Amino acid sequence: MNPTLETPVREALVEYLLRLGDDRLVLGHRLSEWCGHAPILEEDIALANIALDLIGQATLFLKLAGETEGAGRSEDALAYFRDSTDFRNVQLVELPKGDFAVTIVRQFLVSVAAYYQLEALQQSAHSELAGIAAKALKETRYHVRHAGEWVLKLGDGTAESHERAQRALDDLWRYTGEMFLPDAVDETLAGAGIGADLAALEPKWRAQVADVVGRATLALPADGYMQRGGRAGRHTEHLGHMLAEMQIVARSHPGAQW
Amino acid sequence: MNPTLETPVREALVEYLLRLGDDRLVLGHRLSEWCGHAPILEEDIALANIALDLIGQATLFLKLAGETEGAGRSEDALAYFRDSTDFRNVQLVELPKGDFAVTIVRQFLVSVAAYYQLEALQQSAHSELAGIAAKALKETRYHVRHAGEWVLKLGDGTAESHERAQRALDDLWRYTGEMFLPDAVDETLAGAGIGADLAALEPKWRAQVADVVGRATLALPADGYMQRGGRAGRHTEHLGHMLAEMQIVARSHPGAQW
Repeated sequence: MNPTLETPVREALVEYLLRLGDDRLVLGHRLSEWCGHAPILEEDIALANIALDLIGQATLFLKLAGETEGAGRSEDALAYFRDSTDFRNVQLVELPKGDFAVTIVRQFLVSVAAYYQLEALQQSAHSELAGIAAKALKETRYHVRHAGEWVLKLGDGTAESHERAQRALDDLWRYTGEMFLPDAVDETLAGAGIGADLAALEPKWRAQVADVVGRATLALPADGYMQRGGRAGRHTEHLGHMLAEMQIVARSHPGAQW
Repeated sequence: MNPTLETPVREALVEYLLRLGDDRLVLGHRLSEWCGHAPILEEDIALANIALDLIGQATLFLKLAGETEGAGRSEDALAYFRDSTDFRNVQLVELPKGDFAVTIVRQFLVSVAAYYQLEALQQSAHSELAGIAAKALKETRYHVRHAGEWVLKLGDGTAESHERAQRALDDLWRYTGEMFLPDAVDETLAGAGIGADLAALEPKWRAQVADVVGRATLALPADGYMQRGGRAGRHTEHLGHMLAEMQIVARSHPGAQW
């Protein structure tokens, strides 16, 4: 049972749920671009399964966002009828799928962060959020394992796979900081016992990433300038292109039953 | 346990398994083109799940085809390194995904045929084939139900959805005959107790299709000229385009580990 939320907390929660939903909707869509294009059938199926998990999680978070907002927007309205400036995902997930190394390294970096965040959100004072987090955590455990095993294979594989994995890690690194940058929304919800303490997640993420990267014989990039802006609706051009494609069918038949 | 097969039966079985595998690989790929493009999130997920089932079934049938052939070709080699003239799918599954009505009506027509074929193949004297059929049958039961419910919704829906569903049915109809056209391969395997009696499947398929089409207030097309050729490697131009896209990653890195 959730007590009635005070307006500032409710508004922060809507924003928070959009972040959780959009990260997954956008990454799930990027992953689904591999459908039928992975170099081996088994991996094609594995990536599609992860994409499905993410889109399923996005549906749950966006549905709860719409209900919490109370303005009658369904999860489909939120997915298909918002413009890119209203999306709240981190920029990391909207970058093009790149080669297989980029896809795998990104999936690993994002899944580890998601894992620790969901683990914390299981304890949320908001029971529906806690329930979704518990379900998503089980799926995310598999995503971490799958992507992590591939990081090891690529890093500790052929000269070419090693080089591509290192390049992916170097290119993506400056987009990772945004995942752990708390703002007023995070502070309000952490204070209300609803959200996770982002600052506490970062060391756990870093330790696990460093461990796998090291065992993959890859080098952890130095921390430098970190990109930011996605949480506030400032996105790369790539998100606009993706949304144009993703939303066209729904927007061509607004309100249609089919 | 499978007795050692005589050469003509073994060769027919390889061909038969390629047909079963290719129908599913090609249709699964067509369905996966909807990933992220369906008009509602729930349907996006449902279509992707069906695509995954089909690609999973294809993997099993192609693996067994490679093993039966005994020439060392893996399921990946069969999927990614054959040219279109070596594909054995019916033309119906290679046609472009079209609009949502085309996708759904095709899925229904193919799934009902697959259902009765797999039901028969469960009793195959070839134990591995029987095992794959039993697993695939469970999945296909869901595909029939899902696509059938959508045919009802589209046919008995708005004027536009009705019209589109009828057009899809009319356009696809001439490609359905090939699914039930027995040749020497079918006769050899039916005679050996390994394959299904195709001629016996057609009336069951027709009865179920007629029932759903009728309840959907759609008109069953008249039987006329039926397209054929896919089973012998004669395909529409659409298959070549699809394979070019599907195979490019694997062919760009032949034998690569990553």
